[in-house]
Amino acid sequence: MSMLTISERGKIMPPSPIRKLVPYAEAAKKKGITVYHLNIGQPDIETPKPVLDAVRKSDFKILEYSHSAGNESYRKKLVEYYKKNGIDIDYTQIIITTGGSEEIIFGFMACMDAGDEVIIPEPFYANYNGFAVAAGVNVVPIKSNIENGFALPPIEDFEKVITKKTKAIVVCNPNNPTGYLYSKNEMEVLKTIALKYNLYLFADEAYREFCYESTHFSAMQLQGCDDNVVLMDTISKRYSSCGARIGALITRNKNLFDTAMKFAQARLSPPGFGQIAGEAAIDLPDNYFDITKAEYKARRDLIVKRLNAMKGVFCPNPGGAFYAMASLPIDDSDKFCQWLLEDFNYNKQTVMLAPATGFYGTVGLGKNEVRLAYVLNLDSIERAMDCLENALEKYPNKK
Amino acid sequence: MSMLTISERGKIMPPSPIRKLVPYAEAAKKKGITVYHLNIGQPDIETPKPVLDAVRKSDFKILEYSHSAGNESYRKKLVEYYKKNGIDIDYTQIIITTGGSEEIIFGFMACMDAGDEVIIPEPFYANYNGFAVAAGVNVVPIKSNIENGFALPPIEDFEKVITKKTKAIVVCNPNNPTGYLYSKNEMEVLKTIALKYNLYLFADEAYREFCYESTHFSAMQLQGCDDNVVLMDTISKRYSSCGARIGALITRNKNLFDTAMKFAQARLSPPGFGQIAGEAAIDLPDNYFDITKAEYKARRDLIVKRLNAMKGVFCPNPGGAFYAMASLPIDDSDKFCQWLLEDFNYNKQTVMLAPATGFYGTVGLGKNEVRLAYVLNLDSIERAMDCLENALEKYPNKK
Repeated sequence: MSMLTISERGKIMPPSPIRKLVPYAEAAKKKGITVYHLNIGQPDIETPKPVLDAVRKSDFKILEYSHSAGNESYRKKLVEYYKKNGIDIDYTQIIITTGGSEEIIFGFMACMDAGDEVIIPEPFYANYNGFAVAAGVNVVPIKSNIENGFALPPIEDFEKVITKKTKAIVVCNPNNPTGYLYSKNEMEVLKTIALKYNLYLFADEAYREFCYESTHFSAMQLQGCDDNVVLMDTISKRYSSCGARIGALITRNKNLFDTAMKFAQARLSPPGFGQIAGEAAIDLPDNYFDITKAEYKARRDLIVKRLNAMKGVFCPNPGGAFYAMASLPIDDSDKFCQWLLEDFNYNKQTVMLAPATGFYGTVGLGKNEVRLAYVLNLDSIERAMDCLENALEKYPNKK
Repeated sequence: MSMLTISERGKIMPPSPIRKLVPYAEAAKKKGITVYHLNIGQPDIETPKPVLDAVRKSDFKILEYSHSAGNESYRKKLVEYYKKNGIDIDYTQIIITTGGSEEIIFGFMACMDAGDEVIIPEPFYANYNGFAVAAGVNVVPIKSNIENGFALPPIEDFEKVITKKTKAIVVCNPNNPTGYLYSKNEMEVLKTIALKYNLYLFADEAYREFCYESTHFSAMQLQGCDDNVVLMDTISKRYSSCGARIGALITRNKNLFDTAMKFAQARLSPPGFGQIAGEAAIDLPDNYFDITKAEYKARRDLIVKRLNAMKGVFCPNPGGAFYAMASLPIDDSDKFCQWLLEDFNYNKQTVMLAPATGFYGTVGLGKNEVRLAYVLNLDSIERAMDCLENALEKYPNKK
């Protein structure tokens, strides 16, 4: 027997909570059951043709490393995109990253050492946990509540958990998994805390374009906290381009930028083809988001209406992104989601959901909540909701 | 003034030693001087057309996340490639990574905790330092010597530095920056050490295809140490596809594989277009490498001949990769390489080299050595060597 060991961080590294049900979904499909996937944030909206065509029409001879911060032409174009969105930055404040994932790692690594703490309102995007483990950083969750649609917890809740080790707050706006859109006032509260306690404010704005009633207010639009704010962005959801693996870390803090750049240099460069796609996306017509947004809004309206019409179900109306969180009259969302795939079908159909437990840092929370990603068309959503409604009647461990 | 701090690891993170001379090269170009770039491993060989065409002809509608381990079709094709190279693995032992960089991070993170030690013969690929800092791991260098062409240091040198904290050895074969090709016997020595002390053996085989006299012997071909060996591979150099950002972490160690997969899941998936390129590359005709290799060999022969013909210069004949290390009759390679760009020209031409200091973990070593990447055509190499020969005559701080 080998005495080789894996690392402690490797042991505590959480497996993907969303992907752990995949084998049950595969088994269901093998039995001939149609599975409606509301479990994962992979949009079904087509990638805009001009974005794919830009890659297809590329005519270089050598697929070279790009600049470690990304192609200058792309960074300069991105400045235009941000300007349209009321965000004033220079291209020298942008590092193109490999998806949104890499910028979170770079940000955590540059700002925090092992043992440092980052406050994140829970429920939160599960992979923040993974990046925190990789960086040796401790996530300190503070609870947001389904009753008020997962609004920002009060300032006292932040202050209760701030220690000497606290270095940063992460806010995802609009939020994954809750769909909550933080208001300008809430962003100002975060600024107040960041300034008072000298914390970085990491703002994950992957879903910026998908706000259904109010306008998005970016952390980069906050005044007087240029050194605190780190914008974490990605083209994955915005242009249905998850596979491009292109994101961006943006900050006006020169010291932080230079530090993040050293991590960027070590990995040489972000993906070449993906950068071509990202650059082309900026030239999409202004109405591109209108069309996509209208589609997502119609889906949201439908899914929220259907959920709230089910007995014992509550789903607050999410202001953005393409996720809804719902509380269900069940004992345990992990068991229920597995049961949906393993033991249930409604006319040979079922639905795959994400148990909310994976989005909470506090063990025991989210047991009666699920996340639904409305990444299917209206007709599929109707049928998925028929399945869920029927399943809730049949599920043996109701509560 | 802000009281925000950056992390300690951010402070000790080394900037790229290769890229730090870039501003001097840019200034030289602005003065109308032609700069021959022998400083960086960006091949000038064209990316094979079928590889680029596969991406250009792709006809999917949605650029989706792939499997976190990479597309199954690509992994299955890679098995064929490895089989041709005498390496027997299963596709479930492969994780497609974002370039070679990501697999090194995944490997370090999965096997080692902060404070653990990894032994690497120096001079070594400078970015190992960066990944070690990111992972909180300490690199323990052991010296290889230009006199014997940078052969593997004797087993006693390893044993002298092995402690309870030692978890792994990294070997780059053929080596960047030395071009040294480790023999089967030397690989067996590494196996002996790995088994005796329960260490992982990370084998970076990015340059496997470029061996000019002997055959490459892969760490994956070692018998009886399946749990120890982690192969780190990439398509960057093999197919002149650095910008694709596609590599692979390969191991028969199931526990390690599963642990690395958790890090892979957190970042969702490797680049989509790059995977298409990588998969197409496997269908290149068998003579593809013959042609590329013949070109690199001719360049190596020329550069080694020219260097050794210069007074006070010694360059061992590298058996693989596309790098040569040379000792020069100079005081300080950092100063000399900067001087070449800042204060020297020969008929309006100069040459950019990489000071060897950046490749040594031990401070003070490499002061009279430089690395030359032979990634230019024969004619350019001739002219670059004319510049160097002339520069060595004129350089004021000879030794």
